[in-house]
Amino acid sequence: MSETMKAAVKSKPAPKSTEVREVPMPEPRPDEVLVRVKMSSICGTDVHIYDWDAWAAKRIQVPLVQGHEFAGEIERVGSNVTGLRKGEYVSAEGHIACGRCTMCRTGNAHVCKNVSIIGVDRNGAFAEFLTVPASNVIVNDHNLSPELATMQDPFGNAVYTTMNANVPGKTVAIFGLGPIGLMAVALCRAMAARKVIAIGHRNQYRMDLAKKIGAHLVLRSSDTLADEVTDATAGEGVDEVLEFSGSETAVQQAIKVVRPAGGIHLLGLFPKPLTLDISEMVTKGVSIHGIHGRLMYATWYQMGGLLKSGNVNLRPILTHKFSLDDYNEAMEVMRSGNCGKVAFPMEG
Amino acid sequence: MSETMKAAVKSKPAPKSTEVREVPMPEPRPDEVLVRVKMSSICGTDVHIYDWDAWAAKRIQVPLVQGHEFAGEIERVGSNVTGLRKGEYVSAEGHIACGRCTMCRTGNAHVCKNVSIIGVDRNGAFAEFLTVPASNVIVNDHNLSPELATMQDPFGNAVYTTMNANVPGKTVAIFGLGPIGLMAVALCRAMAARKVIAIGHRNQYRMDLAKKIGAHLVLRSSDTLADEVTDATAGEGVDEVLEFSGSETAVQQAIKVVRPAGGIHLLGLFPKPLTLDISEMVTKGVSIHGIHGRLMYATWYQMGGLLKSGNVNLRPILTHKFSLDDYNEAMEVMRSGNCGKVAFPMEG
Amino acid sequence: MSETMKAAVKSKPAPKSTEVREVPMPEPRPDEVLVRVKMSSICGTDVHIYDWDAWAAKRIQVPLVQGHEFAGEIERVGSNVTGLRKGEYVSAEGHIACGRCTMCRTGNAHVCKNVSIIGVDRNGAFAEFLTVPASNVIVNDHNLSPELATMQDPFGNAVYTTMNANVPGKTVAIFGLGPIGLMAVALCRAMAARKVIAIGHRNQYRMDLAKKIGAHLVLRSSDTLADEVTDATAGEGVDEVLEFSGSETAVQQAIKVVRPAGGIHLLGLFPKPLTLDISEMVTKGVSIHGIHGRLMYATWYQMGGLLKSGNVNLRPILTHKFSLDDYNEAMEVMRSGNCGKVAFPMEG
Amino acid sequence: MSETMKAAVKSKPAPKSTEVREVPMPEPRPDEVLVRVKMSSICGTDVHIYDWDAWAAKRIQVPLVQGHEFAGEIERVGSNVTGLRKGEYVSAEGHIACGRCTMCRTGNAHVCKNVSIIGVDRNGAFAEFLTVPASNVIVNDHNLSPELATMQDPFGNAVYTTMNANVPGKTVAIFGLGPIGLMAVALCRAMAARKVIAIGHRNQYRMDLAKKIGAHLVLRSSDTLADEVTDATAGEGVDEVLEFSGSETAVQQAIKVVRPAGGIHLLGLFPKPLTLDISEMVTKGVSIHGIHGRLMYATWYQMGGLLKSGNVNLRPILTHKFSLDDYNEAMEVMRSGNCGKVAFPMEG
Repeated sequence: MSETMKAAVKSKPAPKSTEVREVPMPEPRPDEVLVRVKMSSICGTDVHIYDWDAWAAKRIQVPLVQGHEFAGEIERVGSNVTGLRKGEYVSAEGHIACGRCTMCRTGNAHVCKNVSIIGVDRNGAFAEFLTVPASNVIVNDHNLSPELATMQDPFGNAVYTTMNANVPGKTVAIFGLGPIGLMAVALCRAMAARKVIAIGHRNQYRMDLAKKIGAHLVLRSSDTLADEVTDATAGEGVDEVLEFSGSETAVQQAIKVVRPAGGIHLLGLFPKPLTLDISEMVTKGVSIHGIHGRLMYATWYQMGGLLKSGNVNLRPILTHKFSLDDYNEAMEVMRSGNCGKVAFPMEG
Repeated sequence: MSETMKAAVKSKPAPKSTEVREVPMPEPRPDEVLVRVKMSSICGTDVHIYDWDAWAAKRIQVPLVQGHEFAGEIERVGSNVTGLRKGEYVSAEGHIACGRCTMCRTGNAHVCKNVSIIGVDRNGAFAEFLTVPASNVIVNDHNLSPELATMQDPFGNAVYTTMNANVPGKTVAIFGLGPIGLMAVALCRAMAARKVIAIGHRNQYRMDLAKKIGAHLVLRSSDTLADEVTDATAGEGVDEVLEFSGSETAVQQAIKVVRPAGGIHLLGLFPKPLTLDISEMVTKGVSIHGIHGRLMYATWYQMGGLLKSGNVNLRPILTHKFSLDDYNEAMEVMRSGNCGKVAFPMEG
Repeated sequence: MSETMKAAVKSKPAPKSTEVREVPMPEPRPDEVLVRVKMSSICGTDVHIYDWDAWAAKRIQVPLVQGHEFAGEIERVGSNVTGLRKGEYVSAEGHIACGRCTMCRTGNAHVCKNVSIIGVDRNGAFAEFLTVPASNVIVNDHNLSPELATMQDPFGNAVYTTMNANVPGKTVAIFGLGPIGLMAVALCRAMAARKVIAIGHRNQYRMDLAKKIGAHLVLRSSDTLADEVTDATAGEGVDEVLEFSGSETAVQQAIKVVRPAGGIHLLGLFPKPLTLDISEMVTKGVSIHGIHGRLMYATWYQMGGLLKSGNVNLRPILTHKFSLDDYNEAMEVMRSGNCGKVAFPMEG
Repeated sequence: MSETMKAAVKSKPAPKSTEVREVPMPEPRPDEVLVRVKMSSICGTDVHIYDWDAWAAKRIQVPLVQGHEFAGEIERVGSNVTGLRKGEYVSAEGHIACGRCTMCRTGNAHVCKNVSIIGVDRNGAFAEFLTVPASNVIVNDHNLSPELATMQDPFGNAVYTTMNANVPGKTVAIFGLGPIGLMAVALCRAMAARKVIAIGHRNQYRMDLAKKIGAHLVLRSSDTLADEVTDATAGEGVDEVLEFSGSETAVQQAIKVVRPAGGIHLLGLFPKPLTLDISEMVTKGVSIHGIHGRLMYATWYQMGGLLKSGNVNLRPILTHKFSLDDYNEAMEVMRSGNCGKVAFPMEG
């Protein structure tokens, strides 16, 4: 094996400042595997790091190879690893939980207090190879295309959110049409939601994509949105709201449009505290659920089953592919918003 | 309005003995509505009454107009009825709950101890008109065809069973391919089950129908069935079993093929006590759920949503239509098993 | 029977303005019962009406007999009432649901859109007699004292909130020590919560009462409260928060002190929108549940069972009794906060 | 440290045949800890091995040190162990799950297909020292007595069963009054069950113990038992049945006495298949839940909280203590049934 590999390296604590260059081949520890990347893809978090925003400046140590969404093949297994072997087609959960805290020991590893994240707290997948703990590896169905396999980490966010809302037969409003919101549209359609109302903001590209994926109704956020949604449900309100936009207005509208005893499921994060009419939520008997990450690893098994069902129209969401050499160009497309998911297929 | 109507009347406490003849038009009580039937359909229970089996001999008072599956139009509303009006397109829940017992008052009206049943304990839908309590009426979406609307009562059994198993992403084995089992196949496919394994017995007609509706795999019950199902799930066992066959062997096999921590959902009834390996069920941490009727009326609202989603391939299950004049012929087709659901469209 | 009865009548649309005087005896409609009141008690809502605040000015029509918490005996049953009879010892759910809307028909009558409330929208229990719909009547265990029976309506709020949090074995923080908050303290202790932390504000009387009822720890709201609660849970945070205070600070602190994947249950209402760190709630995977009223009537059956268990130390919460003639004095005690629940035993 | 320790060694594949003698001190592997036992206790499984019944003959390899219920102090930690240290007061989950199978990765480690059990598949706690995997160690509250701490493994069975039935406010029938059944009695009382009906068979000692622990009603199994239970619930039936007896009759009676939409929770195992009226269970809409082991490790955290609450009257269940030297005598007491839990305090 070669002693170096190609990687996109965030080299300085500053916006952009990413170089695609040769770096030393990583070495798996005894409980890790080394994976040869076949496809990786860009998460919103990667854009925050690329842009070096306030969060990134506080959290990230450079140099760093970003990227936690990928599909690849096991190249080598650490000395203590059992049950995995060279050549297996895999992806991985990006959150590495400690396994010992109260959360980890009670089925809540997704909110482990000592979590570290691939491509954020350690080198990730925007490279020819990466190492990941064996515990986090998911063996993919060999019929699953790398295009779908690399999207599983964000798809897991969408699956966790959507499964939490138990959507079959229900009317669902989806706020925010980035890749995860679009995946939720596909999921609600796949699971026989009564009516899927996709709500975008300014981005026509993504509203068109929502329509293509199967939303029954696509609306643009506005002052009259709550009335439009209420009208679209014959005055009853929606059964469930899935929120991926990170917008205060969206949550305010969610409380208005959800029916009594309905649910609001929040995956999006917000740059500042929100001002909300909590009394309306209380008198309506509504629940608001914070959704973080994916259940480890129940959500991954659900994902495998959902993808296998053939019902989920996920492929149109991956709209762009770039060579890793064109890393900066790919990031700029992602920043523009005129895209769904953006991926890096690896040569060879 | 005419003073008489056509009805199929079970006239004697004996097998068959049904006459299609003119009877007095029924009169709605103050809390009832009179419905003009557009389509009715035959339930397995109707065959038991037609055959005058031991259960029927004990339960049924003749003369009786059978039938609890129907779609029609409200012709007249009783003096105390509010919120319903002449001309509305309706179906009805066939179980009339008392509303006052502990079960009714705690959200379990589906197991009311004082229940009476339309077409069993009072005259039903195999006629030009029937009366039903206003509380039981469901207003149908005007785009729902009478063919689908009349099937809602049994579809509700299938929906309650399938929703109880929470099937999206899961592997499901369905035992028994009568109309309700076939509806469950359609529902599992509609909700993105990972793999739908439909298990028939001797009836090739219905196994073919299961395939047509979308079962991923159709198996015939046999001594090796448990092994076949286990193989079809890569040795893991199925996540959920839905049982509609009423066969002891099916439940015995269900306990074998369900994975640890999985669920078995029983709608079928059994002619005698079953001998089961309960220890295997316990050490596997499996739950067995008895499913009776439909949740009143939560299941009906779920049904409305599922039918509206467009995902449920229900129409092929209604395979035969007969004039009410050919009542006995219709019953014989139903008894032969070479059919899905059998319906009576009403003229005019 | 007498043709008049004594009642406390809110006679003018203005603060206080309540007169205790003779009024005509109410007449039950066909589906109602007439109840002779043995004990009634004052809810916070009654104080809002007494004070004629903005909400009351908008909602209330005078003249009105207030009061929805009571225990009494059936004096007469309406002509259509079945299953109830003169002399039965009863209380009643104060929310009268329509029975026909989607919420009512799907097990969510507690958030019926057409609700009317006893003692708010129609005459209530601060009188010798009142009428209530038969559907809302609860027959009390004959061993239940009127002091406990009259408190069931608010106790139902506490039960619904506490059962929603599934507290056995858990650490629970309770914000707000009015009568319902105190009842929640008693309930958490009754159900074997690991640690019950009762949080008051300025009212020492009620903090002392919380201690007496069995709170493991009583804290006073302050800037350092979140740290105190965290310390009291060895840094883990509480499993569940029950909020009865109606204070913005309480909800802000709740989000801080709840552990990841924990729950916040809000019964309190808030005079204005709240500004909350929703991102913290999302990254912790926390759910916030709006709790309204009581489940109809599942919560009432749970209440009956909990009171019968003998574990619930409820009696100390009823701290004051007044003759109905001293209505204004009772209201002033209630307004002072130096009390738990205040009741009116009726002579005779 | 000494190179040998005292242990009770099942030395031959035959009944009894246990010798208390010196054996080599066990050595913890890198991921294990060595624990100095302070108290251990006898499980029913230990009696099966002692008696060398058919199950034992098939499963057990001799020589074996039995015992999986214990409390002790960490004496030494393996080289890879983090988060635990010498001197900590601990107990342990007796089921060692593989951590890699589908069940382990989806929150169902309690039904891991590759489980091995302490004191069954490897040496256990009837000795001065034992080794256990660090993953299985539970650090006990330092106020928890060794008498309670050693009972946690079976208490976990009782907690899992009881929590699954969600008993606050409910009427519960408990079949089987061995130590785990008695613990369930204590738990139902601790959590404010409405009425706890404890059902014994021939063993008066344990029926007396059930009364002492707080059962509202103690009944003896008989042909009229179903009627007695029904009468004790005013004809409604019990909300939940917890079954610990391993008797076919008990499950048959459970189906009769449980109310519609109620639950039956089976922990007991049965020597042969059971013949059950499953149709009655189905028409009543009842669920039967197989309960195996304890949730890993959610149940352990619940246990900690329940014991800390002060509500659980557990101590009377430990009725006998023996020196390890009197091992055979202790086993004979356990076999007689005239006891609750039997423990071995270790000297020093």
